[in-house]
Amino acid sequence: MPTDRDRDALRPGEVAVDAGAPGDARLRFIGRIHTPWATRDDCPRQGRMDGPECRVEVFAPWDAALKGLEAYETVELLYWLDRGRRDLVLQSPKSDGVTTGTFALRSPVRPNPIGTSLVRLVKVSGSNLIVRGLDCLDGTPLVDIKPDRCEFTPKAPPKG
Amino acid sequence: MPTDRDRDALRPGEVAVDAGAPGDARLRFIGRIHTPWATRDDCPRQGRMDGPECRVEVFAPWDAALKGLEAYETVELLYWLDRGRRDLVLQSPKSDGVTTGTFALRSPVRPNPIGTSLVRLVKVSGSNLIVRGLDCLDGTPLVDIKPDRCEFTPKAPPKG
Repeated sequence: MPTDRDRDALRPGEVAVDAGAPGDARLRFIGRIHTPWATRDDCPRQGRMDGPECRVEVFAPWDAALKGLEAYETVELLYWLDRGRRDLVLQSPKSDGVTTGTFALRSPVRPNPIGTSLVRLVKVSGSNLIVRGLDCLDGTPLVDIKPDRCEFTPKAPPKG
Repeated sequence: MPTDRDRDALRPGEVAVDAGAPGDARLRFIGRIHTPWATRDDCPRQGRMDGPECRVEVFAPWDAALKGLEAYETVELLYWLDRGRRDLVLQSPKSDGVTTGTFALRSPVRPNPIGTSLVRLVKVSGSNLIVRGLDCLDGTPLVDIKPDRCEFTPKAPPKG
């Protein structure tokens, strides 16, 4: 079974840069994402709206910021993909081996490893969201929740 | 003319929380976005694909990571909205005054002020992208570039 160190080895064509430690801005984790996938190999390549239900736990005091979100069918989640190296500019994905720029891939290996997904909001239950459409590891730190940019007017007036 | 301090005052219904300094993860700015909008009042509420051309400057050594991006028509940009407060859980937007949770708004005021936009890629010119569809301030720091999640196969094979 491949270890993280095996995964972090450079493949043919890959190029890493030495850019020092990142320090331009700081993030706060506002929650945690619970999915069925415990290893990177288990994760689907892309989330599907008919995929399994996942739970997005929002930590206090940020759960108060969910007010009104239940009116949206689709929400955007931002999360922190903290398992990979951050210094590759060229990557040779295992799937096809074709060396490509990091910014032309949606790989979790990138200088600022923030993942974004559009997910179907099944329900809001207290400080938890039940959603479909994710593809990230169980335990992934949550960074932000936004209503889908296409849905400016919620389907129904926000409750309460 | 309103100052940033005026803008940062709480409106009726708004709630701020005391969550301490963010320190869970660090970002590195990989470039800078050049737009026609010098103040927050100038920015459009939402970018339009037929909006003005904007220039996304990618700093060395990250410009090497653009290889292959030119094959995509639509790309996702992540950037840092560094002008607002980060402690509001309830907001009362100036536009309608309806108090709403931060996560049910796409406001730049949020615990992790990362903006995301889908933009039309007009061209890649060296270490710069020319794009349409942005709505952010001139000088906004760039955090990430990803191909659109809907376009898994580029329109044309990547060049070179």
